[in-house]
Amino acid sequence: MSLIVQKYGGTSVATIARLEIVAQRIIATRAQGHDVVVVVSAMGHETDRLDELAQQVGITPEVHREVDVLLSTGEQVTTALLSMVLANQGCAARSYTGGQIKILTDSAHTKARILNIECERLRSDLDASVVAVVAGFQGVDERGNITTLGRGGSDTTAVALAAALGADECQIYTDVDGVYTTDPRVVDDARCLARLTFEEMLELASLGSRVLHTRAVEFASKYKVPIRVLSSFNDSVGTLITSEDDSGMEQPIISGIAFTKDEAKLTVLGVKDIPGIASKILGPVSDANIEVDMIVQNVAADNSTDFTFTVRRSDYDQALVVLRSVATQVEAREVNGDNRIAKLSLVGVGMRSHAGVAAKMFRVLAAESINIQMISTSEIKISVVIDEKYLELAVRALHSAFELA
Amino acid sequence: MSLIVQKYGGTSVATIARLEIVAQRIIATRAQGHDVVVVVSAMGHETDRLDELAQQVGITPEVHREVDVLLSTGEQVTTALLSMVLANQGCAARSYTGGQIKILTDSAHTKARILNIECERLRSDLDASVVAVVAGFQGVDERGNITTLGRGGSDTTAVALAAALGADECQIYTDVDGVYTTDPRVVDDARCLARLTFEEMLELASLGSRVLHTRAVEFASKYKVPIRVLSSFNDSVGTLITSEDDSGMEQPIISGIAFTKDEAKLTVLGVKDIPGIASKILGPVSDANIEVDMIVQNVAADNSTDFTFTVRRSDYDQALVVLRSVATQVEAREVNGDNRIAKLSLVGVGMRSHAGVAAKMFRVLAAESINIQMISTSEIKISVVIDEKYLELAVRALHSAFELA
Repeated sequence: MSLIVQKYGGTSVATIARLEIVAQRIIATRAQGHDVVVVVSAMGHETDRLDELAQQVGITPEVHREVDVLLSTGEQVTTALLSMVLANQGCAARSYTGGQIKILTDSAHTKARILNIECERLRSDLDASVVAVVAGFQGVDERGNITTLGRGGSDTTAVALAAALGADECQIYTDVDGVYTTDPRVVDDARCLARLTFEEMLELASLGSRVLHTRAVEFASKYKVPIRVLSSFNDSVGTLITSEDDSGMEQPIISGIAFTKDEAKLTVLGVKDIPGIASKILGPVSDANIEVDMIVQNVAADNSTDFTFTVRRSDYDQALVVLRSVATQVEAREVNGDNRIAKLSLVGVGMRSHAGVAAKMFRVLAAESINIQMISTSEIKISVVIDEKYLELAVRALHSAFELA
Repeated sequence: MSLIVQKYGGTSVATIARLEIVAQRIIATRAQGHDVVVVVSAMGHETDRLDELAQQVGITPEVHREVDVLLSTGEQVTTALLSMVLANQGCAARSYTGGQIKILTDSAHTKARILNIECERLRSDLDASVVAVVAGFQGVDERGNITTLGRGGSDTTAVALAAALGADECQIYTDVDGVYTTDPRVVDDARCLARLTFEEMLELASLGSRVLHTRAVEFASKYKVPIRVLSSFNDSVGTLITSEDDSGMEQPIISGIAFTKDEAKLTVLGVKDIPGIASKILGPVSDANIEVDMIVQNVAADNSTDFTFTVRRSDYDQALVVLRSVATQVEAREVNGDNRIAKLSLVGVGMRSHAGVAAKMFRVLAAESINIQMISTSEIKISVVIDEKYLELAVRALHSAFELA
């Protein structure tokens, strides 16, 4: 008998009919002899509806406490309805807000971090064969103020609960079958992965595979909680995400290909190649609250250098304005940019022990006459920036060349 | 300087624009030098929306705990949004759920009763010039489970808070100017009353003047909290409701005329006039969870009697079925009924010391050729049942005869 934490996201709980299917799944899991604790998100677009009300009033930092009070009602509604559906199907259930089971967080409203979870009530429910249905995404600070964990925070709640309870597995139910080698909408024969390591999942998640919230994966990695991503719409086994040590077999070289079109590229040409120039350029960008992703500085020639970085596409125009003002100060020759780019990344822990992945990647892209504009590498990832019009072609070619199908 | 509890109902808080007007009123009250604590209901038809979701799942007593978790989100949303609006208008504000300020209730989910309110947080907010915005209608039991007080419970929350804080006045903001001598939709020159006693308000409220929740008036009467009913849409002074002792002047004989078409009449004809017959007839009706309002038993003639009572109109068909089965057992001659009736009541504490009110009432109705089917009296009220088609005519005639305009 295992203890399983199951988390059901927005599409899985969007209607009463969907909640009935979720209830059947919970009951079936218990019939297999497992103990279950459930975490739920808000129904369908409920969070968007509440967020829109808050936008109408106007969101300033002074009212972040109240935004949390507002948004947290979304998950509360789901916990109540799912508990009712379970009871009607003969399964004793009890709903809990973050405050009721004391999911203690810091006081950083709208982006709070979990500090501690009291497990007493949940354990006594487990002993009494009652299914606890916990509101995801929310907690309370030490003074009892309601806090929320930021978008996707329900995944984090589920993993944190699994860690606190010492659960055997944290199952994240979504509207896809699991984590794929790449986006099936781009590559027909994209394959659902059976296993992944936390590191690989982190790279895939932060690169645009939106199956799982990054913070939840970090949390799971830290506390070694096995996560399973699976569909609430069918009975596939999904993707199991564990520590590298636990996977117990040699890793494939490449696990998946992540990509995003949500970036833009900016270049400062012909700046002096002197110490401190990078911070002079990026300081004002960061001060403008613009997040920078990839950064590349070319090798200097004749005492001048070119400096390129990427930002979120929605920040492109603002970044260009900031950069033009900076360019005058650092006596740059020119500033240019491109918001028609895409970033594509190969991810895989097997890369560590296999040379030649980068070379093969570049060869495949060259064979398709795709020019590489930027390159950035980490231990288990190689990212390139290319013209966005070649993205689908590049993904398909690499998916096939690295035999991911 | 006074301490005022202000309660804003559903129509007063239905939109963000309405919340902005409410915020201005709160700020204006404070500018006059008063301290203010605010209680709010759910926005517009939000409670109906949530209730419909619950109905879709199916409401059984086993899930009443969860129904409360669901419904309580409605008020929570309003507290958050109003606090945001107040903050944006430069007035420091903080929202509270029933649980956060420990509105302790019993565990009778969906119809809980308030046992105690801790005032510590509210007092420290008052000291810090922060407006506390409290969710009406909800509380927690001693184990921290969320409870609700039943429909209209926000009025009760406001009065209970006013009692706990020793407030000088509890203002109930509605969409009408106050309590009227009768329904202005029926009588053009119906007048808004300046003052009423708790007893009169109780009779008027329970008879269909839906301005104020009966339980709230009982609570206010018990703890002697002056209530003022007034409009959130204009600046009229509304109706002040206090103890009879406080009103400090002679009472008018009649304060108002209440009426309802929501009743039906049932009669058992020709039953034996023996002890216990009433309970034999009404016992099975009560067992079927049908509430009985007026009961009249005619004086016996030739050892048999007729027995008449009224029920809610929606219970009429079921009551008729129950009664036909009872009739056979008690050997009644016949059972008949009428669901086209109306009940009309004159209310006024001045009646106690004035004879002849009933006689005048019957004379006025007779002058309009309106037949009286049932009569029932109490110390401060006379009720009659008439054919519903004469209701408006009767109300207008009495309103004019008793000079209520």
